Amino acid sequence: MTALHPAREQFQLEEVLAALGHPIRASIVRKLSSSGKETFCGEIVPGVPKSTLTHHWRVLRESGVIRQRPSGRKLYITLRRDDLDARFPGLLDLLLSEESFGRAADQVTAV
Amino acid sequence: MTALHPAREQFQLEEVLAALGHPIRASIVRKLSSSGKETFCGEIVPGVPKSTLTHHWRVLRESGVIRQRPSGRKLYITLRRDDLDARFPGLLDLLLSEESFGRAADQVTAV
Repeated sequence: MTALHPAREQFQLEEVLAALGHPIRASIVRKLSSSGKETFCGEIVPGVPKSTLTHHWRVLRESGVIRQRPSGRKLYITLRRDDLDARFPGLLDLLLSEESFGRAADQVTAV
Repeated sequence: MTALHPAREQFQLEEVLAALGHPIRASIVRKLSSSGKETFCGEIVPGVPKSTLTHHWRVLRESGVIRQRPSGRKLYITLRRDDLDARFPGLLDLLLSEESFGRAADQVTAV
């Protein structure tokens, strides 16, 4: 089964905020933004249990923040930066410019 | 008992985003911003049950988004705009500039 992704026009600002409003998900977004490319899901926040991450991938995907691409048994993740910038101009830049955004989970996710 | 309010320095960006990432709470923030002054809690989103609102006041207060002032049996609410602007410059302006922010709950909260 292919995971469902909302079209850019379907994004809801409050859902995006709720998705970004969690230390682990904020950390994922910061790391994806830094990498700037599609990333194997196991490499992004390696200290977080897979079962916990499954929930976070869903919240991020359903709000439009990330795109998931399954390949065999692996899952690859991309930040939907273009779509987010088109819908909510400046939001991602503003959050990523905040030093604290996505850092609270660093102790948890460091290995 | 006086409700606890975080000092501006204690605000966590992810907590603020989570607080703003809900249709009713976004609606409250938009309305408080429009009114620009302390407002009786019963006047802000009059269609929402009081028991539901109690939860939302707490989430908004504990993240730093609003200030509550009890007066007798009434509760007065202010948006902590100065504190939010000081900690996360541009965030509130950006969200309020989005036409959709805080409008999703309008059908629910209209009386």
